[in-house]
Amino acid sequence: MEVKDITAVKQFLLSLQDSICAGLEEEDGSACFHTDQWDREKGGSGITRVLTDGATIEKGGVNFSHVFGEAMPATATAARPELAGRAYQAMGVSLVIHPRNPFAPTSHANFRLFVAEKSHEEPVWWFGGGFDMTPYYGFEEDCVHWHSVARDRCHGFGDGYYSKFKNWCDEYFHLKHRNESRGIGGLFFDDLNELGFEQTFGFVQSVATGYLEAYRPIVARRKNMPFEENHRRFQEYRRGRYAEFNLVYDRGTVFGLQSGVGRIESILMSLPPVVRWIYDYQAEPGSEEEKLTRYYLKPRDWV
Amino acid sequence: MEVKDITAVKQFLLSLQDSICAGLEEEDGSACFHTDQWDREKGGSGITRVLTDGATIEKGGVNFSHVFGEAMPATATAARPELAGRAYQAMGVSLVIHPRNPFAPTSHANFRLFVAEKSHEEPVWWFGGGFDMTPYYGFEEDCVHWHSVARDRCHGFGDGYYSKFKNWCDEYFHLKHRNESRGIGGLFFDDLNELGFEQTFGFVQSVATGYLEAYRPIVARRKNMPFEENHRRFQEYRRGRYAEFNLVYDRGTVFGLQSGVGRIESILMSLPPVVRWIYDYQAEPGSEEEKLTRYYLKPRDWV
Repeated sequence: MEVKDITAVKQFLLSLQDSICAGLEEEDGSACFHTDQWDREKGGSGITRVLTDGATIEKGGVNFSHVFGEAMPATATAARPELAGRAYQAMGVSLVIHPRNPFAPTSHANFRLFVAEKSHEEPVWWFGGGFDMTPYYGFEEDCVHWHSVARDRCHGFGDGYYSKFKNWCDEYFHLKHRNESRGIGGLFFDDLNELGFEQTFGFVQSVATGYLEAYRPIVARRKNMPFEENHRRFQEYRRGRYAEFNLVYDRGTVFGLQSGVGRIESILMSLPPVVRWIYDYQAEPGSEEEKLTRYYLKPRDWV
Repeated sequence: MEVKDITAVKQFLLSLQDSICAGLEEEDGSACFHTDQWDREKGGSGITRVLTDGATIEKGGVNFSHVFGEAMPATATAARPELAGRAYQAMGVSLVIHPRNPFAPTSHANFRLFVAEKSHEEPVWWFGGGFDMTPYYGFEEDCVHWHSVARDRCHGFGDGYYSKFKNWCDEYFHLKHRNESRGIGGLFFDDLNELGFEQTFGFVQSVATGYLEAYRPIVARRKNMPFEENHRRFQEYRRGRYAEFNLVYDRGTVFGLQSGVGRIESILMSLPPVVRWIYDYQAEPGSEEEKLTRYYLKPRDWV
């Protein structure tokens, strides 16, 4: 890996952030992303872009950040504990979109490059990322579309990548204390460098540019569906699971809160705009609400 | 410590739960606590009492639980790491009350006894607990009253207990990632046995029975104050901090989620009913909202 490679990834991530924001603004049809540029005292900077109170998107954030650290925390790489303590840099785009309509799912995507210095050696680098979707009401065709794009975007890269990263996604986005999946999954990969830099970066680009193709048609189908107060309440209730996952399990969030690396408001922009915790809620048997957890939130083959 | 001592603590805690629920129902004036009795497969049981959508209390839970475990987790005792892995029993009452009116503060209290077995030795036991208050709008007289009761209830027990446990409370209920206190504090103690069983239990009784005396007059003063939509929004926004604290830092909650000890719905009944996360909210300088964090949520001597 050379310096020009890091520059190329940075350029890609910045233009990814731009095109995703532009596509989402178009889909929203009313609000625009607001931009906060920030610098980190200890090295690094970021561009946080947040859209609030749109016609379609109630709250959405698309962050770019590039941070430098003197000692890599153990949470940064599960697969390479021997690198803990090394100097590193990390850059990535991370986004969470919470639509207003309860029939439109929340989506999350993240694409990042880690580079860890090794003295007298080539730097160690890897990519991580993926995208996943969290519906509040299930629609078979949405799940199939989402996973079809995920599968197509893996095509032509490593053997069995779709199946491998689909399963990893199901494992990762799991609320252990609820024994529930956070959503219907998608792709999740980490510590990826086995294809060499050029091919791995190509894979990341393929998946990353697939996000809008996966998400927009679903939002377009759902954003104007009429809904009642009870649908909205259920969405707010289910968003509680999202908050629980992000605050208790998500590696990036927990790392950010514990380490002080990164900007708190940018890390926590992933939290839903309005959340409801209802004690011991039980969905009516046979209802759409019950089908969500019984059918949609179980790992399954969608394509 | 003898078996009859454990029985006495259990009786006290059950009657404490009853009297607190009765007092809060009286203060609410409309709703009643609903009771769920539950048993734990691996040993132990609990009584969860929850009040929702009352005239005054939007959501409140008062839990009793008594659980047995084969191997004490490290999170159970910071001060006695050598006991990790021992068989134990834990019983306690834990409560969180979220009033509807933004001018009425949230309150939390917890009183618990831990007993860890040591082979061929007397069991090791200690009490923990305390109470603390989280206002959304500050009122000097409420803070003074709350801490006056806290101080009075410590009187006649260990030397400097109020000041020691007041400071411990300020340290414990601190959101590191926000560099903010959760509320205006109160009392927090743990690993307490230095006075011997009888006196320590007496101290716990003194504080525990002081909770209603501390909280009710404040709720009574605030529950009917007129408020606007913007006050309500700010309350919902600040409740986000409560959720962040409980899910990220609270020892009992994190222990419950990670260990599978206890009942998830009972553990998470502490989470607020409706929460709002607003990206990069900034209170207007000089406003009551700004005064909350600038003045009230800084550790200070209230009495």
